[in-house]
Amino acid sequence: MMKPWFESAPRLVDVAMSRTPADTVIRDVRWVNVHSGEIIPATDIAIAAGRFAYVGPDASHTIGDKTRVIDGNGRYAVPGLCDAHMHVESGMVTVTEFVRAVIPHGTTSMFIDPHEIANVLGMPGVRLMHDEAAGLPINVYVQMPSCVPSAPGLENGGATLGPDDVKEAMAWPNIIGLGEMMNFPGVIASDANMLAEIGHTQAANKTVGGHYASKDLGKPFHAYAAGGPADDHEGTSREDAKARVRQGMRAMLRLGSAWYDVAAQVKAITEDGLDSRSFVLCTDDSHSGTLVNDGHMNRVVRHAIAQGLKPITAIQMATLNTAQHFGLERELGSITPGRRADLILTSDLVELPVETVIGQGEILAENGSLTGDIPPYDYPATAKNTVRLGKKLAASDFDITAPEGANAVDARVIGVIENQAPTRALQHSLPVENGIVGMDRQADVCQIALVERHRATGKVVNAFVSGFGYDKPCALASTVAHDSHHMIVVGTDKRDMALAANRLGEVGGGVVLFSEGRELALVRLPIAGLMSDQRAETVADEANALIAAMQSCGCTLNNAYMQHSLLALVVIPDLRISDVGLIDVTQFAPTELFVG
Amino acid sequence: MMKPWFESAPRLVDVAMSRTPADTVIRDVRWVNVHSGEIIPATDIAIAAGRFAYVGPDASHTIGDKTRVIDGNGRYAVPGLCDAHMHVESGMVTVTEFVRAVIPHGTTSMFIDPHEIANVLGMPGVRLMHDEAAGLPINVYVQMPSCVPSAPGLENGGATLGPDDVKEAMAWPNIIGLGEMMNFPGVIASDANMLAEIGHTQAANKTVGGHYASKDLGKPFHAYAAGGPADDHEGTSREDAKARVRQGMRAMLRLGSAWYDVAAQVKAITEDGLDSRSFVLCTDDSHSGTLVNDGHMNRVVRHAIAQGLKPITAIQMATLNTAQHFGLERELGSITPGRRADLILTSDLVELPVETVIGQGEILAENGSLTGDIPPYDYPATAKNTVRLGKKLAASDFDITAPEGANAVDARVIGVIENQAPTRALQHSLPVENGIVGMDRQADVCQIALVERHRATGKVVNAFVSGFGYDKPCALASTVAHDSHHMIVVGTDKRDMALAANRLGEVGGGVVLFSEGRELALVRLPIAGLMSDQRAETVADEANALIAAMQSCGCTLNNAYMQHSLLALVVIPDLRISDVGLIDVTQFAPTELFVG
Repeated sequence: MMKPWFESAPRLVDVAMSRTPADTVIRDVRWVNVHSGEIIPATDIAIAAGRFAYVGPDASHTIGDKTRVIDGNGRYAVPGLCDAHMHVESGMVTVTEFVRAVIPHGTTSMFIDPHEIANVLGMPGVRLMHDEAAGLPINVYVQMPSCVPSAPGLENGGATLGPDDVKEAMAWPNIIGLGEMMNFPGVIASDANMLAEIGHTQAANKTVGGHYASKDLGKPFHAYAAGGPADDHEGTSREDAKARVRQGMRAMLRLGSAWYDVAAQVKAITEDGLDSRSFVLCTDDSHSGTLVNDGHMNRVVRHAIAQGLKPITAIQMATLNTAQHFGLERELGSITPGRRADLILTSDLVELPVETVIGQGEILAENGSLTGDIPPYDYPATAKNTVRLGKKLAASDFDITAPEGANAVDARVIGVIENQAPTRALQHSLPVENGIVGMDRQADVCQIALVERHRATGKVVNAFVSGFGYDKPCALASTVAHDSHHMIVVGTDKRDMALAANRLGEVGGGVVLFSEGRELALVRLPIAGLMSDQRAETVADEANALIAAMQSCGCTLNNAYMQHSLLALVVIPDLRISDVGLIDVTQFAPTELFVG
Repeated sequence: MMKPWFESAPRLVDVAMSRTPADTVIRDVRWVNVHSGEIIPATDIAIAAGRFAYVGPDASHTIGDKTRVIDGNGRYAVPGLCDAHMHVESGMVTVTEFVRAVIPHGTTSMFIDPHEIANVLGMPGVRLMHDEAAGLPINVYVQMPSCVPSAPGLENGGATLGPDDVKEAMAWPNIIGLGEMMNFPGVIASDANMLAEIGHTQAANKTVGGHYASKDLGKPFHAYAAGGPADDHEGTSREDAKARVRQGMRAMLRLGSAWYDVAAQVKAITEDGLDSRSFVLCTDDSHSGTLVNDGHMNRVVRHAIAQGLKPITAIQMATLNTAQHFGLERELGSITPGRRADLILTSDLVELPVETVIGQGEILAENGSLTGDIPPYDYPATAKNTVRLGKKLAASDFDITAPEGANAVDARVIGVIENQAPTRALQHSLPVENGIVGMDRQADVCQIALVERHRATGKVVNAFVSGFGYDKPCALASTVAHDSHHMIVVGTDKRDMALAANRLGEVGGGVVLFSEGRELALVRLPIAGLMSDQRAETVADEANALIAAMQSCGCTLNNAYMQHSLLALVVIPDLRISDVGLIDVTQFAPTELFVG
């Protein structure tokens, strides 16, 4: 961890006064000044103790024999980029690997919500990621997960967190606030636990993250704002963004691997002229492939500029605005004295090629590659043995028994919608053979099973799903199954379903595709069944192989794997599956598999 | 004190959801939304528990039988105005009286630096004003004075404060940060005490106030920024403002009774296009006459608009920007859910007539008058017996003995400059009679004496001053004598000087004018010799009478009384007086009264 500003202040002042030399000086940059909104040419930057000591027209007085001098060559010096809300687990890698992947893209601050590991391991899981974060060469702050489980009563995850846990976490050094308060029905009902979690966060003078996943901008939305959340990244339309900002919340505009919420909302600034200071950029969820191939916050900023924002405004939304939101404006987010020396050198402010990345005063990456490696972080065994099936599964565990004497049934079917998180509640007539309900591959209706994996109960909840397009005998199993992260198995063949489930039990979690008894692809995720212990590039390769294998089985959905992993997300309508059963999320209640 | 948001959150949410009625509803206003930068017509506002519960198009669902309903009549609803840095003592009244005077002008938040009382009474004085502030119906936050005395070694005041005191104060409930760090030579010299005071403030996550009173924007300025101050109100030019903002400080633009620093600096926004979010408005020093006759922050905002700022921008600079600066943006500074219900209703956003003032949910003023009175605050006797002269002064105490055998002397003379805080170091030839140096009333050279009043030493330091224009035998004495607040006596007649000094000893401090043995005017300031225990209107009347009396003695300076009270301010060049002697502030060292 860096020393606080005040411990380094004598050194910084001495450097600025020329009494002692700087560690590093960058000469001749165009200073992207996010405070004044200016770009100031011919600027020198002096760095000491990992912080900016002098930023102005001439730092020659700060250069000593041992000072490293970098020629900026008239390039732009941009503050290091900040991701205001994100889940490391979405990248299926450790925090360390995530950081390794994003540093070359210019990200130097991340605000991570370890919601997924919390659902598997509870407080010890949050603490593991918190401690891992603290040792990294860029700034990683942790939001304490607020909703574990996400839907109390509708699911049983690996852990339960409550107000006392939130209170405890607020005293940890690296906790920056509360993670997305997604239980908005609880907040607007004045639920005592939800308001207590918010209260403990406010009492600690930290930021309450919001998550209002509803289109209703009337009474419930206003009541949610009155409850205390300070931001929201669930808006999708221009009106969503305006409503949030008007209520004194920050609108977090999200561009993740599968979220495209910037273009519509940014019009609130570019067309309606709203003050941009209340807008912040984030990714929420980035897959390893996106990180390796497309970028991270540089991708978001570039996209925001392409939507018509001035470059300086888009950069403010990923630097100063974020810092101000989290009460860190004196600590990071700008290239000014005292702040952490995080910056990017780039020769183009629109395309934003990230040529040099400096974090906490050190050169971390040049031209897209790390300049030094960051050692892997070892997770303890307790974090790695989390897939407890309680038994070896057989094809018959996936049998769905028809009502006595029925020849056919009308079943409820979870309908996947291309490119959207909500599902449809479909109904489909299915045949019955020997008392067991069959699938209808021609109509793209296959089976889905939720396999309990936290308490080794051996429980399997079976149901039907449509939309993946599998046209071969196959099964995909995943222990990434938002939010309680049991195991979801989707298959056209029950033998493959059993093989896939058992294989994940054997390797401690991950994603696996079987077809006709053969393993086509495997992504091992031994940490909590959510994250790999391998390098990000390896995980990206494994994930690409999985996608190709899914396509070879007929699945043509975009982000098919993500769609799979969201089918147990019992907070988003309409129909989902959990360890409790089939859930009608429009009613927040279990429902029957068979109609009538 | 108000309950924190989280304690009232259930009530606010219940109001927004229509489960319980609001206390007050204002219907049909134009919502001046400082977050979005919009003015939104046809808005309703619901208030409960002193906070905003709902702000949106229709609050009819929050109205119950007992709800007070106010018809906004399409007027503008502006957030209550904030004064980002000010000294109550400049008004010569208690905090309570200051608040009584400014509420009708729409001020609902003040950030006060009790620097003056600290110089007389030390920590107990700061605590007295802190505790008084906490009981008032508007928000009064206290900045812990940083420089007591202002110039160690060049003066001995009533108290000395240091890093340990700062650390202690940071734990008091109403302390918002450190008051103006005016010892900039100390900061840029990495003085351990100054950096420790800043460090204790930063460690408490509070705001470090700055005060960089130098024209040098080179190395010293950059070093000062690296030391930690987060704002500065000493800028006077456009370049001053730009330099501060670029270094990541907030530029506080000041319009006090005698400070006119907004017009020049605001051009950094209106002409150079700097991002206005880093600009904040304040008064620093307001005299009681200004408060009673001209206004307070409404005067500043109106003036800023007259300089070409958009009204919404000027209002942001006195509301949201200020709140953000002090880490209070979730607590006050905007009309949005959860914040303290502080607002003004006005029918014109340019002239800003303050028609209704609501503070913490209560109607405090209508059409320029308080709706209810605020009881006076009683200061203890320990705060009232602070003028300790140690003896009865005689005319001979003001005799200035000439060097042995001299018939005339060349004396150093403090030269007052009209409308400016700095003085000139003049020299003047003066006659000697019976070994005593005489004055030269025709050349406007009269005597000045600094009378020690904290430790009853009986010490009198005598010197000469020019510029007041007194053309009669007279003497003005004041126990307001920045910053260590001994007693300054300026007179053309030594008998009047003695009478004036003794009179202040008798009444416990204040300002008095004698002429030819007669008391022409007296402002009694028994609290620390700085503040009246009377109502603001009374003090304004007394002060007006004093000014008229000074004019009757030939003094034609603007702000003559302020000029008088600044003659011991040994941090501003060129020549000053202190209990140590005559001080050459260009050298930060004592100097001789006689030349050569």
